[in-house]
Amino acid sequence: MSDNSFGRSLVMVSFGESHGEVVGVLIEGIPPGTVIEEKRINEWLSRRKPNASVASTKRKEEDTVEILSGVYRGKATGAPLVAIVRNKGSVDEFYEFAEQGWVRPGHADYPAYVKYKGFNDPRGGGRFSARITVGFVIAGAIAEKILEPLNIEVVGYTKSVGSVECPDLELETAKKRYNYETRCPSPDYDSLIKEEMLKAKKDGDSLGGKIRIMTGNLPVGLGQPVFSSIDSELAKAYFSIPAVKGVEIGAGFSASKLRGSQNNDPYVIKNGVITTLTNNAGGVLGGMTNGQPLIATIAFKPVSSIYKPQRTVNVKEMKEGILQLKGFHDVCVVPRAVPIAEALTYFVLADMAIRGGFISER
Amino acid sequence: MSDNSFGRSLVMVSFGESHGEVVGVLIEGIPPGTVIEEKRINEWLSRRKPNASVASTKRKEEDTVEILSGVYRGKATGAPLVAIVRNKGSVDEFYEFAEQGWVRPGHADYPAYVKYKGFNDPRGGGRFSARITVGFVIAGAIAEKILEPLNIEVVGYTKSVGSVECPDLELETAKKRYNYETRCPSPDYDSLIKEEMLKAKKDGDSLGGKIRIMTGNLPVGLGQPVFSSIDSELAKAYFSIPAVKGVEIGAGFSASKLRGSQNNDPYVIKNGVITTLTNNAGGVLGGMTNGQPLIATIAFKPVSSIYKPQRTVNVKEMKEGILQLKGFHDVCVVPRAVPIAEALTYFVLADMAIRGGFISER
Amino acid sequence: MSDNSFGRSLVMVSFGESHGEVVGVLIEGIPPGTVIEEKRINEWLSRRKPNASVASTKRKEEDTVEILSGVYRGKATGAPLVAIVRNKGSVDEFYEFAEQGWVRPGHADYPAYVKYKGFNDPRGGGRFSARITVGFVIAGAIAEKILEPLNIEVVGYTKSVGSVECPDLELETAKKRYNYETRCPSPDYDSLIKEEMLKAKKDGDSLGGKIRIMTGNLPVGLGQPVFSSIDSELAKAYFSIPAVKGVEIGAGFSASKLRGSQNNDPYVIKNGVITTLTNNAGGVLGGMTNGQPLIATIAFKPVSSIYKPQRTVNVKEMKEGILQLKGFHDVCVVPRAVPIAEALTYFVLADMAIRGGFISER
Amino acid sequence: MSDNSFGRSLVMVSFGESHGEVVGVLIEGIPPGTVIEEKRINEWLSRRKPNASVASTKRKEEDTVEILSGVYRGKATGAPLVAIVRNKGSVDEFYEFAEQGWVRPGHADYPAYVKYKGFNDPRGGGRFSARITVGFVIAGAIAEKILEPLNIEVVGYTKSVGSVECPDLELETAKKRYNYETRCPSPDYDSLIKEEMLKAKKDGDSLGGKIRIMTGNLPVGLGQPVFSSIDSELAKAYFSIPAVKGVEIGAGFSASKLRGSQNNDPYVIKNGVITTLTNNAGGVLGGMTNGQPLIATIAFKPVSSIYKPQRTVNVKEMKEGILQLKGFHDVCVVPRAVPIAEALTYFVLADMAIRGGFISER
Repeated sequence: MSDNSFGRSLVMVSFGESHGEVVGVLIEGIPPGTVIEEKRINEWLSRRKPNASVASTKRKEEDTVEILSGVYRGKATGAPLVAIVRNKGSVDEFYEFAEQGWVRPGHADYPAYVKYKGFNDPRGGGRFSARITVGFVIAGAIAEKILEPLNIEVVGYTKSVGSVECPDLELETAKKRYNYETRCPSPDYDSLIKEEMLKAKKDGDSLGGKIRIMTGNLPVGLGQPVFSSIDSELAKAYFSIPAVKGVEIGAGFSASKLRGSQNNDPYVIKNGVITTLTNNAGGVLGGMTNGQPLIATIAFKPVSSIYKPQRTVNVKEMKEGILQLKGFHDVCVVPRAVPIAEALTYFVLADMAIRGGFISER
Repeated sequence: MSDNSFGRSLVMVSFGESHGEVVGVLIEGIPPGTVIEEKRINEWLSRRKPNASVASTKRKEEDTVEILSGVYRGKATGAPLVAIVRNKGSVDEFYEFAEQGWVRPGHADYPAYVKYKGFNDPRGGGRFSARITVGFVIAGAIAEKILEPLNIEVVGYTKSVGSVECPDLELETAKKRYNYETRCPSPDYDSLIKEEMLKAKKDGDSLGGKIRIMTGNLPVGLGQPVFSSIDSELAKAYFSIPAVKGVEIGAGFSASKLRGSQNNDPYVIKNGVITTLTNNAGGVLGGMTNGQPLIATIAFKPVSSIYKPQRTVNVKEMKEGILQLKGFHDVCVVPRAVPIAEALTYFVLADMAIRGGFISER
Repeated sequence: MSDNSFGRSLVMVSFGESHGEVVGVLIEGIPPGTVIEEKRINEWLSRRKPNASVASTKRKEEDTVEILSGVYRGKATGAPLVAIVRNKGSVDEFYEFAEQGWVRPGHADYPAYVKYKGFNDPRGGGRFSARITVGFVIAGAIAEKILEPLNIEVVGYTKSVGSVECPDLELETAKKRYNYETRCPSPDYDSLIKEEMLKAKKDGDSLGGKIRIMTGNLPVGLGQPVFSSIDSELAKAYFSIPAVKGVEIGAGFSASKLRGSQNNDPYVIKNGVITTLTNNAGGVLGGMTNGQPLIATIAFKPVSSIYKPQRTVNVKEMKEGILQLKGFHDVCVVPRAVPIAEALTYFVLADMAIRGGFISER
Repeated sequence: MSDNSFGRSLVMVSFGESHGEVVGVLIEGIPPGTVIEEKRINEWLSRRKPNASVASTKRKEEDTVEILSGVYRGKATGAPLVAIVRNKGSVDEFYEFAEQGWVRPGHADYPAYVKYKGFNDPRGGGRFSARITVGFVIAGAIAEKILEPLNIEVVGYTKSVGSVECPDLELETAKKRYNYETRCPSPDYDSLIKEEMLKAKKDGDSLGGKIRIMTGNLPVGLGQPVFSSIDSELAKAYFSIPAVKGVEIGAGFSASKLRGSQNNDPYVIKNGVITTLTNNAGGVLGGMTNGQPLIATIAFKPVSSIYKPQRTVNVKEMKEGILQLKGFHDVCVVPRAVPIAEALTYFVLADMAIRGGFISER
């Protein structure tokens, strides 16, 4: 297992840089015969495009996947699949300050400079840009297909942006998320979130928020022991998305205030199937799925790139100064992060399904 | 990387069961020459003992480590170190209900039964018991020693239990945690938490809570790319502790409500060293340490084993029923989990320090 | 995957030292429900005992396995199985020369001293002793059991010792190997090999030799792509046995002298099954089993410990000198290495069978 | 660690198919700042071109590398480097027989068909073609650069083809290998080998042979314990080259016929440096380098594709038949395999040098 790889039976290796030639992913362990459609992958990619006029960067990212290996006649061969998306519209001049040694507050610039001794690609954050999540989304689109025989659904939606928080939604409502620019499938909250974004935009500022992930049709027993528990792997995956600062499973932090008698989900039998009356566990017990919907909440910090002037330092000249960023920056990444979080969830579930023998590896 | 293993350059493999012969850990990658003292490991182990009269199980766990390999004349040889702690005081009769097929709400019993087809060791949760964290603590004690040349400190404390939440503490105050039964190093909150626990105990109920982890003296640049970012690895580690349901880095979920201009930590130069005015990032940017204290908060659900009768099912006979647990159970695991969370933090930092060349692998 | 571990779906981690407290192995990925009998493991261990009066060390190794975890009521639980054998009869005084800084020609002493900066356990070769293969044999005994549903057989025998080389034997004949002290199941060659050994012994010298591995009932398609081809994994495993200096699959080095028309094994259909007329491939094509018997030959150098005086150096004092070894040493390890090579073969096949879906992982 | 990946600190993942769009490699762990020159990689690639008029396929492979990620301003950034070579000159019509179900003797066709259920890319062997070694060569060219600070040299040459075997050569002589079409840097044996090839060619047949690998300037102590011994890793690498059937280290199979007193390499001190009088060990003791030249010999079977008609079967129709191959095929791969074997040797040494702290990982 290398630093840029994730998964055990289904493995992805992330590669590429924000302003390099490509971003991409290598995926190993796709069961031979799995249908691979570029069209479907491109649909996934279009969901993470900067589509909300108000919220996102103006950098044009009409991302189209190219598959270089691992597919023959539309089906996975069992060999490693390499997929790339070519980077377009790079505007190198916006990153002169990086060459000069100015580091952006909230970004990886400073520790990356120290760790990589100045050899890392600094343009647009390089390897630390959210652009690398293009590869995650490709992997998720393929993982969704791998899970098709199990009929597993993963649905995420924008739970909050800044101070606007939408109440928990039912799975059926949540499914309509991609009909809303904010990915918050409630007409009221969609409007409120847009307003919140407009205000921040006007101030040259940015916003954070939360995504809620839900699933349908999970079998009992997905998840491996101890360090490969389903919550361990999901948390690892989510924290690999730039800007994530918190992850909860089920009742999460609220559970820490409950008593056992309130938090334990009582078992009952319903139509011959074991189920629970509540789902504080978020579908996970002992690191394994218990047949209830898996629920996760992911907290994103506000976008670090803002137009307001900021105090910072120049690491090459060891001096303080004020940095004012140019270029095109999202006001809030949360809407664009919905398909990313969904993709990683699908990927973890597919890996677990193969590991656990729910899907055949060969 | 196997399911029960964690780390890349410093690797631990967890093994053992709650009521089996031993719990233990195999550790690979300890730099040769590292001093290994059983006495020091036993001190660590004593911190996770059920020491708070009010809060913990009465099962006696006077855990003493035995090192089976990898040490010669008191120093690590570079070969795998295997350390075990023998289980004592098992009371098998308390687990008859498990044999009969009754599953405990909130525990792994049901999904484990399905996943392992009934072959898993069911006594006391077997492999899913918090008892396996004995191995984590041993690994942490050794990781602390590995990090000694860097002078890195990890300090955790009980941040909340149930509805009682202690304000954030300074590192120097927090260091006194082990002088307090609750591991909350504030006389006032220590008392309040004890009260909270007594109330829950009287009700035959249990409590959750939060642990806050802080560090001192971290160098800049610890943390590997993308999936091995320091927050990804920490989150994976923390979610491997039974009962954990949430993890935050720095401002965490609160950051989702801030604007970028509030959340970004401005850089300044102080005594010739780059530092930040605030630490909302919790010391982590782009998955790497930025030289500020690493801050993490971990949410624990209330203990699943309670004395109150609970609705549940029998998986062997597919029928509903009421289960009333006997045996000795903690009211709240949070105080005992403090050294566990610290241990895993040390382990992640030591692995990263070796990976990043801060500590020599050979 | 760590340095001391091997396998992917079935993983073993080797630990222990020749004159430390134990040698042992941790095994992960054993399908839950697999019957684990200590009696059967001890039978395997007895096969690598120094049983041939003429050939082997007099150090008594009555090895008995202790299983510390992963087994409940005689069956694998799916959790890591840790098995140890306690070392007995250590005679530390024979290793004073090591403390003084003398390195034995042909042994790992010198590079180990440099690599581990003198921190490695030097007694009896420590971690580099053939004694660590005890763990390999335990793993093989369990792998054999895992493969039981596929009815796969692995049979090795002593093909040569020194200048005495036995012709290739049929599988049925080879199966009788453990009736012969030399593990060469031909009465004539058994005698000749004993003679060869006696001569070398009288001279205070040692011998090398070859082991031939054969299998029965292999399915078609075992073996993963490229770096996890079945021959890659077998070669890696065999070269991990101390003293191995060469590995061949099928016709091996002889194949390099054949023409394609001679070496290619023609396919035919026999009783409705695809088979080949010859087996120069040794059952492996493109790194996968082709349904023919897998054939491997393994070359062992002569035992490095001899009683004759040898030129060598003292690494602590940087001076030359003559070293004369004491203690008990095998004249030839080949007979004792037969079960070791078989064990690793079973292990590779079991790992591949699980990876390839021939045996269920759960 | 996935099936198509190799290495631990320096990791390559092989991808691509013989007649797919590309063959390539992803490399992780290149120390930041390592100079990456496409020109140098292309020189390496030109060495595995079908250059010997007599010996090789006429398929034109003017391979040119494209680097997609991981390099900025000519230097490695520390991020994954993805390099591809586009496939040209594919002649699909030569592979109609594969579509029909005829399997080529000596090739992976039959087991691949069974294992991948017919979903593998069958054109030109697909994933099982020697064409995938293009990626190995790219990785080797980069590994050579990584090792530059240690001044390590790896030199391979054609040791034998068919029945013609060249005596062992000195390192300085061997270095001239690429001045000879056969890669056998002896004018006499170069001629004899060409003759041998011409004869085989006239007969529509093919040849195998051996490659001898030598190194210069290896430090003492490269190589990790047990399963990551330097010989284990080299053997695994070499057996991943298509057509390899045997690997020897040092005296190899001959060592099995020697006595310990002959085979042990006596230590002496020469100019203040510990060295050995002989090198039967091939520079490897206990899986670590001992400072002497590493010597390995690799046996290749004759090319499986021959023009002579061969008995075989049709796996789709389960019938016997005669197959006569068309297309362009090498008479002998050994000369082209010299840079491949060198590349993998460099790669293993570079990985070990990083793991062992001889080269800094960051």
